[in-house]
Amino acid sequence: MSTTKIINLKSRPSGKPTPANFEFTTEEVPTVDNGQLLLRTTYVSVDPYLRGRMNDVPSYVPPFELGKPIVSGVVAEVLESRHDGFTKGDYVTGSLAWKETQVAGAEGLIKVDPDQAPLSAYLGVLGMTGLTAYFGLTEIGKPKAGETLVVSGAAGAVGSVVGQIGKILGLRVVGIAGSDEKVEMLKSDFGFDAGINYNTTENMSKAIAAACPDGVDIYFDNVGGPISDAVLFNINKFSRTINCGAISVYNNTELPKSVSVQPFLVKNSSLMQGFIVFDYADKYPAGIKQLAQWLGEDKLTHTETVREGFDNIPQAFLDLFDGKNTGKMVVKI
Amino acid sequence: MSTTKIINLKSRPSGKPTPANFEFTTEEVPTVDNGQLLLRTTYVSVDPYLRGRMNDVPSYVPPFELGKPIVSGVVAEVLESRHDGFTKGDYVTGSLAWKETQVAGAEGLIKVDPDQAPLSAYLGVLGMTGLTAYFGLTEIGKPKAGETLVVSGAAGAVGSVVGQIGKILGLRVVGIAGSDEKVEMLKSDFGFDAGINYNTTENMSKAIAAACPDGVDIYFDNVGGPISDAVLFNINKFSRTINCGAISVYNNTELPKSVSVQPFLVKNSSLMQGFIVFDYADKYPAGIKQLAQWLGEDKLTHTETVREGFDNIPQAFLDLFDGKNTGKMVVKI
Repeated sequence: MSTTKIINLKSRPSGKPTPANFEFTTEEVPTVDNGQLLLRTTYVSVDPYLRGRMNDVPSYVPPFELGKPIVSGVVAEVLESRHDGFTKGDYVTGSLAWKETQVAGAEGLIKVDPDQAPLSAYLGVLGMTGLTAYFGLTEIGKPKAGETLVVSGAAGAVGSVVGQIGKILGLRVVGIAGSDEKVEMLKSDFGFDAGINYNTTENMSKAIAAACPDGVDIYFDNVGGPISDAVLFNINKFSRTINCGAISVYNNTELPKSVSVQPFLVKNSSLMQGFIVFDYADKYPAGIKQLAQWLGEDKLTHTETVREGFDNIPQAFLDLFDGKNTGKMVVKI
Repeated sequence: MSTTKIINLKSRPSGKPTPANFEFTTEEVPTVDNGQLLLRTTYVSVDPYLRGRMNDVPSYVPPFELGKPIVSGVVAEVLESRHDGFTKGDYVTGSLAWKETQVAGAEGLIKVDPDQAPLSAYLGVLGMTGLTAYFGLTEIGKPKAGETLVVSGAAGAVGSVVGQIGKILGLRVVGIAGSDEKVEMLKSDFGFDAGINYNTTENMSKAIAAACPDGVDIYFDNVGGPISDAVLFNINKFSRTINCGAISVYNNTELPKSVSVQPFLVKNSSLMQGFIVFDYADKYPAGIKQLAQWLGEDKLTHTETVREGFDNIPQAFLDLFDGKNTGKMVVKI
C-alpha cells in the first residue's frame, strides 16, 4: 500500500476561482482489480471549461462534487496492468483525477505513442485542443479558400491551432490576443496574417475592419463579451461564428449582457453555433489522423506552456484566467 | 395621361416611425413602353422589415431614398400590357411602389391566379410570408416529429404560419403573443398546443419552462429582445434558433443589449441562424407548391388583417409596431 496526493474541489468559486477553492489531501492507493490499471500521472491538462464544472448547475458534463478530486485530461504511465489491452510502461490519455497515482478502469483511455509526438501533445494539438480547433473550424466554419477568419483568444491553446489550420486551408487569418508579445507571436510563430491587441486597442470594431478589408466570413470565438460584440459589426453576409468558449464571461457572477446578436444575424443571414468536441466523437480518428499528418509535415506548430509539479496544478489553472499561458497549458508531474 | 397618388419616404424615422415620415403626392402616369405593363394596385403588403429600409445604412436590400416612393409587396391588376407574358386583366405580384397606378417592367413579377386563392393570399401564406415561415422552419429548424417548437410573434403573419406548419410536421407548438385574445386564437384557430401572453407574464423564462416540459428544441424568433432572452434559459442540447426578425429592437435608437447568447450556445451545442426568404429563392416553386397543397387540404388557415384605402397604408404599417395586426397585414386599394 502507498499513499498519493490528490486535489479536491473544496468550495465552489463565486466569480474568479482562487487557491482557496482547492484542497490538497492524500489517500491510500487501492489494489488493482481485474480490468484495471495502476497509473502514474505524467502530464495534467488545465482548461477553461473546468470552471463551468465547478458550478453546481447542469451542463454538458456534470458538475464536480465538493470534497471529490477535480478531473481533467491527463497523460499517465501504466505502472501495473490487469487489462489485456495495456502493459506496464504504456502511456495512456483520458479523463483522470488530479492524483499523483490512481487506479482506473480502461474505459475511455487511449494508448499514446511517445515516439510519434511528445507526450504533452496528446493533451494539446493531438488531443481535445487540436480536435476542438479542427472540428469547430471545419464542421461549423465550413471554410472556403480566400475567406477571412477572425480568431479570438488566438494565442490560447485552441486559438493558435485554429489559426494555423486556417492558413493551411487558404484563409486570411486575423488573431485577437491580449499583449503585443502574443500578437507578434501569432504572426511570427503561427503564420497569422494580422493580429490585434485588445488591451491597447480603443475601438475594436474599427481595428477589426482595418485588419479585415473584405469583412469577416468566419469568427472562431473563444471569449465572448465585448470582443465578440466588436466582431459582429464586421460580419459578412452568410458568415459563420463558431462559439467554442466564452472565457471572458465565465467568471461573471451576474448574467452577462452583450450587444443583441439577433439583428446582426437577421441582416446578414448569419449563423452562430456552439459546440463541444464530444459532439464529433465519432470523427475523432479522422481528425487525429489529419492533425498528425500536418504535425509531421511541420505545418502545425505545437505550442504549450509547461508548469512543473503536482502542487502547482491549481495555480496553472487560475493563471488561465489572467492569460498567462501561450498555447496549451499543461503541468508536468 | 392621368395622375396617380403616390407615397414617398419624407424623412428617416428616429426610433418608431410616425405619419410625419411619409408624404402623399401625385405624379403623371407615364406611357407604357415595349416590355412594360400598366398596373393598378389591388393589395399592398406592409411588413416590419420595411422599417430597416428607412434607415440609411447598408443592409440586405438598399435603403429607401428620401423623396422616393416606398416599395413593398403588391398585388396589381394589369390594365395594359406591352409584354408577351401578360395580358390585360391578369393579376401579378412582386415588389412595387406605393402608387395607385404605375408602369413597370415585368422583371420579378409573377402572375397569380385569383381562382386558386384569394388575391391577398399571394402577399401572405402563398407569398413571402408563407415562404419565410416554411423555409425558416424546415431549412434551419430541421424539425423532427415530437420536438418542441416555440414561436415568438406567434400571432403575426409569419408566426401564425410557422406554428401551423409545426403542427403539420408533428411538433409540440408553443406560441408567444401580446394579448389574451391572441393567445386564445393561437390555440383555437391555429392549433397551437399552448400560448403565453408576454404582457401579463411576470417571469417569461418560467412560463416557457412550464409550457415546454421537455425544453425547447426549435425557437422561431420574430422579436428578439427580452422574450428571446427568456427562451435561452430553456433551450435543449442541439437546439436551433431561427432568427427571422427582431421587431422588438428595430425601433431602438441605441444599440440594444441582451443576455449574452454565447455561453448558452456553447453549453448546449446550439445554433442560431438568421436568414431572409431571398436566400432560398431557388426553392420558391417547391415551397409554394407545398404551401398551396396544405392550403387546399385546409391544413393551413390564412389569417389576415385587411385595411382599406390607399391613404391608410402608412397607418397600417405603423400599427404593426403596436401589434394591432393578427396575421398578415394588407391594405386593399
